[in-house]
Amino acid sequence: MIVEVIAVGTELLLGQIVNTNVAHIGGRIADLGLDAHYQQTVGDNLARMETAIRTALGRADAVIITGGIGPTQDDITREAICAATGRKMEFSDEYAQALRERYARWAREMPESNLRQAEYPEGAELLPNPKGTAPGIALEHDGKLIFALPGVPPEMHLLLDDHVLPRIRAKAGIDEVLVSRVIKTWGKGESAVAEQLSDLFDSSVNPSMAFLASNGEIKVRLTAKAGTVAEAEALIAPVQRQVEARLGSLVFGRDDDTIEAILIELARSKGWTIGTAESATGGLVAGRLTSVAGSSEVFRGSIVAYATDLKRSLLAVDEATLGAGVVTEPTALAMAMGARERLGVDVAVAVTGFAGPSGDEPGTMVVAIATPEDARARTLRLPGDRERVRTYTVTSAVHLLRLALTGEWWGA
Amino acid sequence: MIVEVIAVGTELLLGQIVNTNVAHIGGRIADLGLDAHYQQTVGDNLARMETAIRTALGRADAVIITGGIGPTQDDITREAICAATGRKMEFSDEYAQALRERYARWAREMPESNLRQAEYPEGAELLPNPKGTAPGIALEHDGKLIFALPGVPPEMHLLLDDHVLPRIRAKAGIDEVLVSRVIKTWGKGESAVAEQLSDLFDSSVNPSMAFLASNGEIKVRLTAKAGTVAEAEALIAPVQRQVEARLGSLVFGRDDDTIEAILIELARSKGWTIGTAESATGGLVAGRLTSVAGSSEVFRGSIVAYATDLKRSLLAVDEATLGAGVVTEPTALAMAMGARERLGVDVAVAVTGFAGPSGDEPGTMVVAIATPEDARARTLRLPGDRERVRTYTVTSAVHLLRLALTGEWWGA
Repeated sequence: MIVEVIAVGTELLLGQIVNTNVAHIGGRIADLGLDAHYQQTVGDNLARMETAIRTALGRADAVIITGGIGPTQDDITREAICAATGRKMEFSDEYAQALRERYARWAREMPESNLRQAEYPEGAELLPNPKGTAPGIALEHDGKLIFALPGVPPEMHLLLDDHVLPRIRAKAGIDEVLVSRVIKTWGKGESAVAEQLSDLFDSSVNPSMAFLASNGEIKVRLTAKAGTVAEAEALIAPVQRQVEARLGSLVFGRDDDTIEAILIELARSKGWTIGTAESATGGLVAGRLTSVAGSSEVFRGSIVAYATDLKRSLLAVDEATLGAGVVTEPTALAMAMGARERLGVDVAVAVTGFAGPSGDEPGTMVVAIATPEDARARTLRLPGDRERVRTYTVTSAVHLLRLALTGEWWGA
Repeated sequence: MIVEVIAVGTELLLGQIVNTNVAHIGGRIADLGLDAHYQQTVGDNLARMETAIRTALGRADAVIITGGIGPTQDDITREAICAATGRKMEFSDEYAQALRERYARWAREMPESNLRQAEYPEGAELLPNPKGTAPGIALEHDGKLIFALPGVPPEMHLLLDDHVLPRIRAKAGIDEVLVSRVIKTWGKGESAVAEQLSDLFDSSVNPSMAFLASNGEIKVRLTAKAGTVAEAEALIAPVQRQVEARLGSLVFGRDDDTIEAILIELARSKGWTIGTAESATGGLVAGRLTSVAGSSEVFRGSIVAYATDLKRSLLAVDEATLGAGVVTEPTALAMAMGARERLGVDVAVAVTGFAGPSGDEPGTMVVAIATPEDARARTLRLPGDRERVRTYTVTSAVHLLRLALTGEWWGA
């Protein structure tokens, strides 16, 4: 089965927004094992939209149109579908009533133009849009499927998953489900992780394995096809166990887990409070830890000692240690110790370094962590510009904090 | 003149990458005042690429193809152009020699497949690619222009600006240059800024005016067309003066200016040092100020007092003030005063608030700034989730800091 996506919107042609919708839909279609040969983008122009839809219907079995179904005068996807299929426009009293009630609940007056969203090509079905006022449209025409979805990504994603993909699956006779599990790792690069799993990668067809790198974290995605979700999960489970056993302490979470949330939960479970002492990262480690709602239960505070004399006055790093070098493991360890005392925390993360571009050794960053059980430092040498060096240091610091909280730590 | 962009690559159809190239090219075409009616995306398939090119030639005056000109077997844009235009493939001994010399300079052996990049449709011109090995292609066919560019964005951008747009301009008879000036503002929303400039917006055709919102900052873009850059700048200057006079202290910079760099420069020029005292923003204001290389000349440090007792012990906020409310203007002012003393800085920015989602009043944030001249606070009530509230608070804090450094301050 061939699926073609048409994105509607003059703003796309003008380059005012990047079209993320077609990539999202393309990925979902590929996940189903279906084919895509072309994508089209067209402006808010009736004749051209009609041409685009006719062209797509001539070469694909299903056409998904995004955009142009809102309430304003330039939203003419409904009209273009009528023109391309030779159908009349109908009006849904039921949907009009639902729109009026929605506005009444918001205690707002409904602009009359909103009623355009109750229009639909003869024979089409309206797909309810819980996140917006424009319903999607589903139509079968000459044995082919036509869908119109909102251009707003969160609304589009919802209607795609809930209404469009199930209909396409049914039409394509796909009675299998697809289940994915993501195993999140930190500590080695993509090629090193892939190498450790290469025999599993080769031998495992269902589930299949894929690698994704983002922000220094490497994700291993296992995707299984089966008749039911339970069967797919049963296929995934043994491979997941093998992958996790191989990767050991590189693994920090699964699916939607974030390292920040895991850290807060780890600290809470041990009854430990956390603080940071930062120089080159300027407060960004603390900023990341406090991005989690409820972090105040374990995170107490931070001392950002950017100026060297503040490392002495606020973190009690002694003169001799500082004199031997501000960007050294002893200084980082002393900062962590000082933070434990001054912030009154059980666990302190300290960072000192040269973020660049100037300085003695740009990209040299030292992270130290002190807990009630141990204290260790690690020196990082990072490539890239100032922003990249700082971002990677923050990611390294939070992942090293995880190893300290679990007691796994790291070698010298 | 109508220009159509064709993006080539199966990875685009599969949604593995988001197509930023078409948005980039679309913006440049629109800047020239030329029209775009359609964009197409097609996989690495000869017959479908030929169809896409023929379709585009049937309705546009210039066709820009991105992708598919590398050295590998699935790079078949050159073949597709030959097929769509009925031209033979030629081979450039000159380019082959240049490729060989390039590899010799790198002291690497050239894979023979690289010579495919010396092929070109009969009559085409090779466009040198300083950032890669694949040259672009420019061809005039039946009075229409066809270009093939690399899919790698930095290579594409360079060839687009240096070779494609000049040829399109010449063909379209555009002998004018386009100059833009961006005026950056903070403090009012897009509609309020637009309203203040509405008569200028209506009356000024050259330069034209556009509004762009990003991260709480509103940009006013003036774009002038003229015979020379100097003439275009002369057209912009009086309108820019009017816009800046109207917007007054809302304006913080121009073109590539960033608020962080402006702040560091402002503080340096006054000989003032800066520090922060943060609660709900957890160090992110300090993180933003230290994103500028060289910020250590004026930024000394920060105390992130997330726990209430640290506001007392590290920032010397007294019990009575805290008792009356942690998220209040008096507490924020006391934090700023405490930070001035404990960090030994001239200027301190303090933030306290409820970032949400729980807490008494999620979205209520207080910023206070103390300088050697004055100290004031401002209470913000921000919509959105925790991340958005924190991001907007950081942006507000740095912009309020600018008003404090310039001595403009703000009303109660």
